[in-house]
Formats: sequence, C-alpha cells, structure tokens
Amino acid sequence: MKKLKLFNDPIYGFITVKNPLVFQVIEHPYFQRLRRISQMGLSYLVYPGAHHTRFHHVIGCTFLMQKAIETLRLKEVDISPEEEEALLLAILMHDLGHGPFSHALEGCFVQSMGHEELSLKFMESLNEQFDKRLEMAMAMFKGEYPRQFMNQLISSQLDMDRLDYLKRDSFYSGVAEGNLNAERLISMLCVRNDQLAIEEKGIYSVEKFIMARRFMYWQVYLHKTGLAAENILVKIVKRSRELIRAGKEVPMTPVLGVFMKNELTSESFEEKYLEAYAKLDDTDLIHGMKAWCNHEDFILSYLSRSIVNRRLPKVVMSDKPFKRDEIDHIRKKIGTRFGIDKTELDYLVYSGEVSNLAYKTEPTGIRIALKKGETIDIKDASAYAGIDGLNQKTTRYFLCYPKKGT
Amino acid sequence: MKKLKLFNDPIYGFITVKNPLVFQVIEHPYFQRLRRISQMGLSYLVYPGAHHTRFHHVIGCTFLMQKAIETLRLKEVDISPEEEEALLLAILMHDLGHGPFSHALEGCFVQSMGHEELSLKFMESLNEQFDKRLEMAMAMFKGEYPRQFMNQLISSQLDMDRLDYLKRDSFYSGVAEGNLNAERLISMLCVRNDQLAIEEKGIYSVEKFIMARRFMYWQVYLHKTGLAAENILVKIVKRSRELIRAGKEVPMTPVLGVFMKNELTSESFEEKYLEAYAKLDDTDLIHGMKAWCNHEDFILSYLSRSIVNRRLPKVVMSDKPFKRDEIDHIRKKIGTRFGIDKTELDYLVYSGEVSNLAYKTEPTGIRIALKKGETIDIKDASAYAGIDGLNQKTTRYFLCYPKKGT
Amino acid sequence: MKKLKLFNDPIYGFITVKNPLVFQVIEHPYFQRLRRISQMGLSYLVYPGAHHTRFHHVIGCTFLMQKAIETLRLKEVDISPEEEEALLLAILMHDLGHGPFSHALEGCFVQSMGHEELSLKFMESLNEQFDKRLEMAMAMFKGEYPRQFMNQLISSQLDMDRLDYLKRDSFYSGVAEGNLNAERLISMLCVRNDQLAIEEKGIYSVEKFIMARRFMYWQVYLHKTGLAAENILVKIVKRSRELIRAGKEVPMTPVLGVFMKNELTSESFEEKYLEAYAKLDDTDLIHGMKAWCNHEDFILSYLSRSIVNRRLPKVVMSDKPFKRDEIDHIRKKIGTRFGIDKTELDYLVYSGEVSNLAYKTEPTGIRIALKKGETIDIKDASAYAGIDGLNQKTTRYFLCYPKKGT
Amino acid sequence: MKKLKLFNDPIYGFITVKNPLVFQVIEHPYFQRLRRISQMGLSYLVYPGAHHTRFHHVIGCTFLMQKAIETLRLKEVDISPEEEEALLLAILMHDLGHGPFSHALEGCFVQSMGHEELSLKFMESLNEQFDKRLEMAMAMFKGEYPRQFMNQLISSQLDMDRLDYLKRDSFYSGVAEGNLNAERLISMLCVRNDQLAIEEKGIYSVEKFIMARRFMYWQVYLHKTGLAAENILVKIVKRSRELIRAGKEVPMTPVLGVFMKNELTSESFEEKYLEAYAKLDDTDLIHGMKAWCNHEDFILSYLSRSIVNRRLPKVVMSDKPFKRDEIDHIRKKIGTRFGIDKTELDYLVYSGEVSNLAYKTEPTGIRIALKKGETIDIKDASAYAGIDGLNQKTTRYFLCYPKKGT
Repeated sequence: MKKLKLFNDPIYGFITVKNPLVFQVIEHPYFQRLRRISQMGLSYLVYPGAHHTRFHHVIGCTFLMQKAIETLRLKEVDISPEEEEALLLAILMHDLGHGPFSHALEGCFVQSMGHEELSLKFMESLNEQFDKRLEMAMAMFKGEYPRQFMNQLISSQLDMDRLDYLKRDSFYSGVAEGNLNAERLISMLCVRNDQLAIEEKGIYSVEKFIMARRFMYWQVYLHKTGLAAENILVKIVKRSRELIRAGKEVPMTPVLGVFMKNELTSESFEEKYLEAYAKLDDTDLIHGMKAWCNHEDFILSYLSRSIVNRRLPKVVMSDKPFKRDEIDHIRKKIGTRFGIDKTELDYLVYSGEVSNLAYKTEPTGIRIALKKGETIDIKDASAYAGIDGLNQKTTRYFLCYPKKGT
Repeated sequence: MKKLKLFNDPIYGFITVKNPLVFQVIEHPYFQRLRRISQMGLSYLVYPGAHHTRFHHVIGCTFLMQKAIETLRLKEVDISPEEEEALLLAILMHDLGHGPFSHALEGCFVQSMGHEELSLKFMESLNEQFDKRLEMAMAMFKGEYPRQFMNQLISSQLDMDRLDYLKRDSFYSGVAEGNLNAERLISMLCVRNDQLAIEEKGIYSVEKFIMARRFMYWQVYLHKTGLAAENILVKIVKRSRELIRAGKEVPMTPVLGVFMKNELTSESFEEKYLEAYAKLDDTDLIHGMKAWCNHEDFILSYLSRSIVNRRLPKVVMSDKPFKRDEIDHIRKKIGTRFGIDKTELDYLVYSGEVSNLAYKTEPTGIRIALKKGETIDIKDASAYAGIDGLNQKTTRYFLCYPKKGT
Repeated sequence: MKKLKLFNDPIYGFITVKNPLVFQVIEHPYFQRLRRISQMGLSYLVYPGAHHTRFHHVIGCTFLMQKAIETLRLKEVDISPEEEEALLLAILMHDLGHGPFSHALEGCFVQSMGHEELSLKFMESLNEQFDKRLEMAMAMFKGEYPRQFMNQLISSQLDMDRLDYLKRDSFYSGVAEGNLNAERLISMLCVRNDQLAIEEKGIYSVEKFIMARRFMYWQVYLHKTGLAAENILVKIVKRSRELIRAGKEVPMTPVLGVFMKNELTSESFEEKYLEAYAKLDDTDLIHGMKAWCNHEDFILSYLSRSIVNRRLPKVVMSDKPFKRDEIDHIRKKIGTRFGIDKTELDYLVYSGEVSNLAYKTEPTGIRIALKKGETIDIKDASAYAGIDGLNQKTTRYFLCYPKKGT
Repeated sequence: MKKLKLFNDPIYGFITVKNPLVFQVIEHPYFQRLRRISQMGLSYLVYPGAHHTRFHHVIGCTFLMQKAIETLRLKEVDISPEEEEALLLAILMHDLGHGPFSHALEGCFVQSMGHEELSLKFMESLNEQFDKRLEMAMAMFKGEYPRQFMNQLISSQLDMDRLDYLKRDSFYSGVAEGNLNAERLISMLCVRNDQLAIEEKGIYSVEKFIMARRFMYWQVYLHKTGLAAENILVKIVKRSRELIRAGKEVPMTPVLGVFMKNELTSESFEEKYLEAYAKLDDTDLIHGMKAWCNHEDFILSYLSRSIVNRRLPKVVMSDKPFKRDEIDHIRKKIGTRFGIDKTELDYLVYSGEVSNLAYKTEPTGIRIALKKGETIDIKDASAYAGIDGLNQKTTRYFLCYPKKGT
C-alpha cells in the first residue's frame, strides 16, 4: 500500500504530496529552515495569532497549484507530467531566499539582493544536489519557460503565491476581511494565447480580490504599530553594525555575525555565504535583541527592549508629509528627555512613508477572457469606475517617537 | 434559576434573548410566519444552500443590535433601558411586512405598498395587542425618534439589517467573498452630534463593506439565473390574474386568492387584508405553481414548470440595452417554435435591466468621525479614489428566452 | 472550452460535476423534487438554520464519493471509469424515495415501504429513461455488486451518506459538536479482502465519528421539541385520514389526497402512484396544515396550529417509562380543560420512546486494517473500553401534553 | 471617548479588555515573554499551523471567563466587581510559569517545580509591583478563595483553561475533531451549593467535551512524532548538562546557562533565578540546538540536527510494553551503525510510555445539576455506559530509534 504524505492545514484541510521529488525538496534543510521564518515579520505583535511561517505558506501554494493544474486540464489545457512537477517545484521553492522576519529586513543582509535572487541561489544549489532535475522549475521561476501562462502561475498579479498569502495571513491574523475565495478564482482560470486569464464571469471576483489585497495592506501589512516594530528592527541592525565598526563588542550568533560584519552585495556573495544564510533565521535576531536589552549602548538596548518587551513607540499617520518644524519640536523634546545627540535621535524619532499600489497594469495586469473571444485588462472589463483608482499609488506618512513613560 | 431563551445560530453561535417582551413578539404568529419566507427569494435555485429565512435574519439583527448597544455604552453613549428595548423591538419587527419570496414579488400583492409600509401595519396591530408598548420602537422604525443615531441603527447605510443580511446571505450561499466583519464594524461605531459614525481607523473596513455589498449584488442578488427565476415568478402572478379576469379557473389557496382577485392599493388596504396577508407565505405560491404545472393555459403551465422542475431560460447579460432587431429575431424563432402570438410571447421572451448603487451619499452617507473632531463622508475620507465610483449607479441589461429543448 | 458544472457549497466550497450522465440525473424532475424536501424534517423549529434540503445533501455525498475514489486510487485500488460513474450515480440517487419532511413521516404514506424501497422504484424508472445505463449503480445500491467495498461506500456504517449528513446537519443547525473531519476519515479509507476498512492510525477518528453521531442523535435528531413536532405531524396525518373515512371534507392538494385516501402498501403500489409520489413534497403538508388551522374538527385545527404558529407542547423526557397514573393525571386535566373525550385525548397527550444505537457490530461494523495485516472491528481495536458501550441501545421516554395557555 | 483595548482573535473575533489592571498585567514583560513560548511545544513539527503561543491562549481564557461571568450573573449568581477582576486576573496569570516549549520540558529546569508553582512565584512578584492588588486572584489560583465555584472556574475539569486550549489547539493544528462548543458549555454553567455545575440538558455536551479531549490527547498531544521530538528535547538538555559537568564547552545563552549549570530545586529557587527564568523562552533552546548542530560531541550534534533539520526517528507504538530482546536487537544494530557505546545508545534508542486519563472523578469530577435538585457526577448522569470507561487510564508504549539514512 502506497503511503500518502499529508500535511494538516487549518485552511485547506489535508494537503497531499504525491510527487516524490517534491517531498524530497520539502525534507531538505534549506526548506526546513522556513519553519523558523515568520511569514508576516513582526505582525504578531499586533495580531497575536499571526505566528504562521513561510514553510506553511509555501506548502499551501503547492496545494493551490495542484488545484490550478486540475482546473486547466479539465478545460483541456495540455500540461505534461514534467511540467506539472516543475510547476509544483517552482512554487515550492520560490520563497527559499527569505531571511529573518521575511520582508521586514529584506535587503539588510545582502545589499541590493532581494529574496527572489537568493531563492535562485538556493535553487541552483539544490539543482546540483538533485541531479539537475530542477531546471524546468528554475526556468519557470525566472519567467523563461516558453509557455507564458506557466510562468504566470508562479509569478504575476494573480499567481498562486498571492492567493495563498492573502488567504493565510487573513486567517491567522483573524482579519476576516482579507479572506478571499481562492477556489472560485482558480475555478475561473483559463489560458488564452498562452496567457493566464480569468473567465468573464469572474470580473467581480477579481475586483473583490484586488480590494481584499488593498485592505490587507492598509489594515495589516502596513498597520502602523507593525510598521513601527519593523522600522525598529532595521534600526537595530544598523546600530549593531555601527557599534561593531566602532570596535564595540556586540554578542551575536556566528551566522548573524557573518552578515553583520561583512558588507555583502550581490557581487561579493559567494558559496560560503549561502551556507551561512541557510542557517540564518528569526531566532538569530531574537537571540540578539534579548542579549542586547542590557547592552551598554543606550540606543541598542533601548530599541531591543522595545521589541522584546513590546514597548512600542507612538506612531502618527498622515496623508501628507510631516512638516520639518513639527518633527524638530518632537526631536528636541525627546533629545532633552533622554539626553542624546542628533545622530542618536535618528534612532528614536523618525518619519517615513509607505505606499501601496493595489493593482498594476504594467508590465501585465489581470486579463479577462471575454466570451466573445477577446482578452482585456480587468481595468477595462470592470463596469466599476473605481478599479482604475486602484491603479494609482496611495502614499501615507508616519512619524514615530517614544511614548511617555517608555 | 432564570431560564435563558437561546437561539442557535451557525453564524454568531448562541443568541440569547433576555428581554421578555422581545421574546413575546417572537412567539407571535405574525412573527412565526417569517419562518416560511425565504430570505433570498428564489436564489436557492442558484445557490442550493440559500434556504435560510427572514425569521433567522431578524433574530440575527437583534444580536447585532445588542452588540452595538454594548459598544456604544462602553464609549459612554447613554442609552436607557427603554431605548434598548425599543431598539431591539424595532429591528426585530422591521421585516414583518415581507411577502412570499421577500423582494422577488415586492409590490405584486398590494400595489405601491412596499414591505416597510406593511411592516408598519403589523406593528400597529401588535402595538394594540401589547398594550401600546411598541410605540417607541415604531417611532425609531419611522425615523421619528428624537435621537437620530438610534433611527440610524435601524435604517441607514450601515444599519444592523445590512450587516446581518450580507453576512448571512454570504454564509448560506457559500459565497465567501460577501462575508464581512460585522464585529469589527460595530466595535468602531460611535456617535457624533447625535449621528451614527465610524471611527477614523475604520475607513478601510467601511470601504471593504461597500465592496462586499457591491459584490453580493452582482454575484448573488442579481445573478442572471436567479433574476430569470424571479422574473418568471412575477409573470406567473400576472398571468394568473389575467386568466382569473378572463373567467378561467385557476386553483389556489384562499389567502393567495384574496390578493390575486382584488387589486389592492395602499388606499384600499383594510384590516381584513392584513389578516389574510398574515397567512400568506412562500408555500402559497409553490402550491400554486405545482398545481399549475398541468394547467390548460400553456403559458401558465410552461412558466410553472420552469420553476418547479428548474427548467430555467437562457439569460444573456450585457452592458448595453439589447437592440430591437436582436430581440425581434428571437421572438420570431420562439413564436414559431411554440406557436404562440405576440402578447403571449412577452411571457417567454423578455428583456429588462437591473442596476445597483453600492453607496449613496444622499440623503446621508456613512460618516467617518475624524480624530480631530470633524465628521466627514466616507467618500471624502477615503484616500482611495474609487469609492467615488461606487456612488454611481451601474446598470446591466438582460434578455431571457427558452433554452433549446425546454 | 469545456464548461464545468459547479455547485456552491458552504461546506466543501465548489462541487464540480464532471460526468454528463450524473448531471442529467440531477436535472431530472424526480431529483429536483428533493429541493422541496427538508433534510431534517421539522428540526428547523428548534434550530432555525436547519432549512437545508435533501437535494443539497445528495450533491454533497457525490463530492465525498469523488474524494473517496481518488484516495483509493492513490492507494492503488483499481476502480474502472464505469465503476466510478456507478458509484457517483448510486450515491446520488440513494435518497430519491424520501417523502415530505424526510424521516418524520417515513412509512406514513405507503405502509411498510421505507424510503429506500421507494428510491429503488425511482431508479428503475430512471433506468428505463436513461437507456439502462443505471444498472451497475442499482446493483451497488442493492448491495449486489460483486465488489463488496463499493456497496459499502454506498451503504454501511461509514458510508459517504453518513459522513455528509452528520457534517451538513451540524453545519446548518449550528451544533458545532457534530462536525466531523470527513476528509481525514476518507484519507484513511482502504480496502482489505474486498472490504472497506480504515487504516489503524484512524482508530481515534472512528471513535470520534461514532461519538459525534451519538451526540447529533440526542442533541438534534431526537431533540425533545423536534420530537414533539414530528409526532404531531404523524398525528395530523392520522386525524385527516380518520376524518376522510368519516366522510368529512378535508381540503388538500390532489397528490396528498392520493396518499391520504388510499391505504397503499408495497404490494398495491403501482406505477401511477410513483408519479403522484414524484410530486409530493413538504409544501403539500404545509399547505394542508395552514388550511386546517381553522378546520371545524378541533383536534385537526389544534394540531395544525401547533405547527404553523409553533405552539409546541410541553415535553418531559425520562430514562424510565412514565407511570400509568402519572399519565392519567395529566389526561384528566387536559380532558377537562379542552372538554374532549378519551380517543381524542390520545392526540393531545401521548408518550412514547426513542432509542439510538450509536454503533452496531451487526451485520458488519467498522473495520480497522491493522498494520500487521489483520482486519478487526473498531470495538476490538479501540483501547477505549467505552466503545463497547456504544454498541448498546439507549432508550429514552417522552411524555407530551399542551402547555398552559396554548 | 474611552478607548477600548482590543485583541484580534481568529477564534472569538475581537477580545475587548475593559479592566485597566488586567491590561497593565498584560503589558508587563513577564507576560510579554509568553509570546515566545509555543503553546504546543514542538507539535508544529507535526502540525505546521500550530505555532500559536501561551500569550494568545491566556488572552483567550480571559475572554471565556468574561462570558462565564456574564452567564452566571444572568442566572442570578452574585459576583462582585472585585471578584470579577480577580477571576480575570487569575486566569490571565495562571500560565506565567511555563518555560520553553511549555509542557515539553516541564520540570527540566527547576527540579520538582511544576509550571503552576512557578506561576505563583511570578504572581507574588507582580503582587508587590501592583500594590498587593492581586491577592484575591492569587487566592483563587491557589484554590483558597471561600467561594468554591470561583476556584473551579480557574482550575477544575471544566475550567476556562481547558475550554480555550482544546478549542485553540484544535483550530491552529487544523484537527477539526478537537473543536468544542465552548459557548454552549458556558451557557449551561450554573452554581449549586457553591460548586460549579452543568445543567442537566448539557449531559451530551459534557460527554462530547470529554471525548474531544481524549481525541486531542491521542491524535495531537501524544502524537508519536511529536512525542519523539519532545523526548529528544529532554535528551538534549540532559546531554548538555553531562558535557558541562565533564568540563566541555557548550555554548548557550546566559539565561539558559543559569538553569543548565545549576541544579535548582524548589528549595534552592531564589529571587535571582526568577529574574533569569523571566528571560528564558523557546529561542534560548533553539539558539542552543542550532549552535550544537556541529558540536564535537556526536550525541549532542546528532540530536540537535534531528530537531533543527527535522530528521526525526522512527517511532513504533504499541499497547504492550516492548520486550527486552526486541529493544536489544535494535540497540545492537544502531550501536554498530554509529559505533557508539551503551550509555550513548540510551540517547538514540529509547522506549517509554504515555498515558491519558480522559476524565477523573477524583478529587472532583464534572457535576450535573439535575432538574430535580440533586447534583451528580457526569459518570452517573450519562446514560452512556462508556463514560465510565474514560475514567480508566489508557497507557501506550513507544520505541524510538534512528531511521535509515539519518
């Protein structure tokens, strides 16, 4: 009797992994590391249920990919067994390159190298270990496979990644509004001229999907408290580096040390750094912050305690940039209160902006396959004027500074 | 030990009714009739789970009203026990006037009299039976209570009615996209200058609510197949009346007869008709249609069979009105096929339009209470340009005619 | 592009029907009738959400059957396309014979003929209409197909019927405790010596399933108020028949008349009666009860009003039979109150018993496939002594009589 | 406008904290530490969704406690505002003493001191910090408050702790079978002779609750793979201590060092250790294991890699103890394979037992308040013989050893 590999998922029920190579990749230490990478960075400081991991997200993506393959085949789209395997592998490995706290520290460890570039490094290494059997998956991941719609299932504005993360993040954070009907969207997938598209009757579902995404950005991903926490994380990394450069002792795990002591870029990124990166996860940072709560440097210890004990700053949001004198006023007050100088003040009082573009028509938007045969952009298909508005970037500004008594 | 009156609700869990007068109204036959009125008309022909009733919806509304009262009191809005009772009673009774299949046949039985006017008739009768204890509730229902925000909890663009029906209809139809977070919206309710408002941080939730409503309209309430079914229902009523006027025998229940044989208007609507209406429900119509499946009149029997055996017509939807010659072409084909004349053809081939306005600023929109003290319309509060687009009516056109082989 | 037939299900999401013959059977009027048969009889008088229908249940069963087939095939059980179709058809049609309010009136219309025998009559008729293509399905339904495990998927103590109805009834009634993990149970199905079995690791799930079933029986199916309502239904049918025999006029629909005026048995059940039965549903009974609320016969009108206006009797439950003098005392009081004689009293004061056997080892229980190769009964596999207790019938007694003021 | 403190919970929706002292305790670093303690130990290696924390569980408990207080007050049980506050505080703080991975390492850091004793230490410290305002809560936690039923809401076989953890663990692990209807159980709570009891009609719910608990134990808490992982954790701690005693260098965080280098008992547990314990969480252990993956001691590095890379051993379960020669045979094979001696073998090949008692009548069971006035144990109230079986301990045996190729 053949044994099924099952993963329990509160969202989709059981996820069955039938393909042996897919299962072998899941068992690889590179992949198991994702169990220690928080899917939503520090959002759990705002949404206490949001402790799910990249690992679980990626397993969920393969489930949706399997469903998409089934649907397209029922609609007589030809997908070979090799292509099926490659699609599953590509979506499975697409997040391998994420570092501690996912997006929160993106670009902090290896300059100008996003998580996708790092994912590719891991894939190259795995490809060697698995006898070059990942090449088709890598082509799809890079968008270079000849059949466009397959590349789009991996990465586009309606890919299996987005469908899973919106649904999963909504579920675990308890923000019901972000829930979307992945099944309905998948059931309406089709292929037109080698492009992934949605059947005409799915227009409302696509609108709804875009709005859910918009909602999740402002309510969850860019929630002001989470934003503040993640800014602090970046500042902690920055301060540590400064102290190290200044010759101070800053205790940390050896793998974190590799990335804090060296200024790596995509050019200088060698094999050995990949092996270090493969060991780096959330716990290296938490270990650091816990250790630094009593560090002699006031800034480092203050910021570390903010996270460890959840003493987060006051955050003011605005539709307009904050005025210079408004900020200066606060800087002065805080400077006096803590007796710190101008450069140090930048660690405690800071402003910035966040923006979100719910939907982009460029390079390719979401296509609607009209019954009459044409394929048009959702922006043009929707009777609803507002969808166009979503194609405009919304920017909001924030200002953070220590709360009274913290 | 005091006994609690509980209703099991798959959506909210347990609904506890603590107020004895509220419970007595629930037990009244006028109210029990709502158990036989489908909340979503004939939508169950499209969404097989949508068999829930007006009864359940209204019980759900009282649950949300109780939550809203609790929230407002925590925010130090003063609500007296009498006002609490009146709010619960008003929302409880607001749908008493619905007839068979809820909105589907609205206005068909008593001309120019909507379900709200009929609800008021029932309330007046109950008020007599309950020693004039429903007067404050009636004032709120009519929007005449001096405290505006209470009237708005009963009826406005963000009232407890809408919160429950969107959530409930979404739940039972299995259209997850319409699900909304009623709890979050209620937790952000507040009162400003005696007007119901939503705290500033609720802007995204309100946007989301409006989009969910829009989605439910196009995907569910105005679903083309459900639309066709409900149009047939109206035509069946019309045809029966014609046949009766022509002296033909059309078997039906006595209470349905009252409304089919008399042409009632809001002027001629007397006490005795209210008693008949109090006995009219979905089953009178289903009984009729089942009986008429073999009626000698071809039109009546054809239409009745369409519903009873679910042989629904072909429905074409369009953003533009159908052209005269397009319709004529189909009329001709169907006329030949069934051997029927022009007036009869109107029963089998028909076009029409449906429209939906997801959000109205008039007479009063949804107010956002800014932190700075001002209260502005969601349309102006939202950074998102599209919300304005929702303030424009969308109209779609449909054309129905018998499918091949039916 | 091939079109998929989809049913929206709040429980399973989308149900896709791929097989054309299965879809044709669903479209047949015999099958559409199930839309008008309440899955849980009058339980909606207790659980206001429980308005789901036999139609939806049966569609759900086919979904689970499809899953079971997929699982078994993954475990290398050979199932041919013909067998797959037959399995889907058999489970689809297994409830065709249900009459008004499902089990509540079972055996009231055609003596000694259960709904299964009637289902078979419908299948025979459909088999003729569909060119004898249902024969394999019928063999499975009758338990006569050579491959035992297939018959068991249709009917056994762990068949797809039970898995769906427990889950569905739990969902719609809002009684979360009855919810079971159908997916997990199905994922552990296997075949041993041509018998359906559950893998050893599924022991706890099977225990849990049996307990959920037990819970649903006592909390929902045999809920005392629902029990009283269904007893009244039976008494209404009985009283109508008596009045008809006594020559009184009792208005009712013609199809209901067929079954009230004739005393049909499985011997006298002819073709023409099947056609009448194919038109009989809940609304015929509701129509009757509404009409009889003002019938001149006090008993018939009293009982009809009990249901229509939900004026249900007092119900006392006990673990022991009620004593004769206890009952007599109440009969006397009620007799005096309503001024009715002894035979009529039987309609208003009555006792009875209900019993439930959560699990039966006979004729075949639920088999556990041990890793070592043996297959044993769950009763013997379970380390938990209590499972044996479930193999004993529990009986409870009830006594009903009019409440004060009703 | 008063500001509400809200926590988003995917299970209960919004949890509102109204009491300021309760909120202050939540903000204390002792309490924030619970955000870094996995509620279910290493179960997430089996159920990838089970990453929820003690923090979230305890917030959930206060929600249920608030519901229980409301229900009892509706039933005219007198609960003063001071008692309400104390009940909320007591349940909030009851898990403060949990260490890394909750139960998995219970007793490993401070000998013979369970998490409850440690919770009390934390409460004593907080009581000082909060001006002795926690004394009533502490009395309840210790079971010494004069009103018994209050102590029982904190700790008994049907306390708010159990209701939350079963529901929450079931939710996050995706094991739907463990889901219970906490609301229904709470709605049936009552007080008889100062004892917490369940109304008679709740018998089936209590049975169901006990079975759900039993299910969760065997399916989740004692899942063989999770069991193996947690045994490894204990062995890692043991091995580290051995190496330290032998003078080897074992890198670890200073707080972990406190507990690894000292053999603390409840007698030697001083103030300073509490402060160290207040900084100890899951990440200290994970940090250790990651560091030790390449430790020169083969046993320590092998075991650490088992967890970090999820290379878990083979686990065989049995109803009977494993025979000596069966174990010896495996020991020999593994000894040869890894070239290790007898004492080291104990780290890689080991057997043990787990047992679970789903329900205990001693010291006090779950009481059912009969309508007639008596209060009896659920064991006697249940018509179902099996409940008695649950009162017997079930023991299972396991044997673990390295899988091939690991």
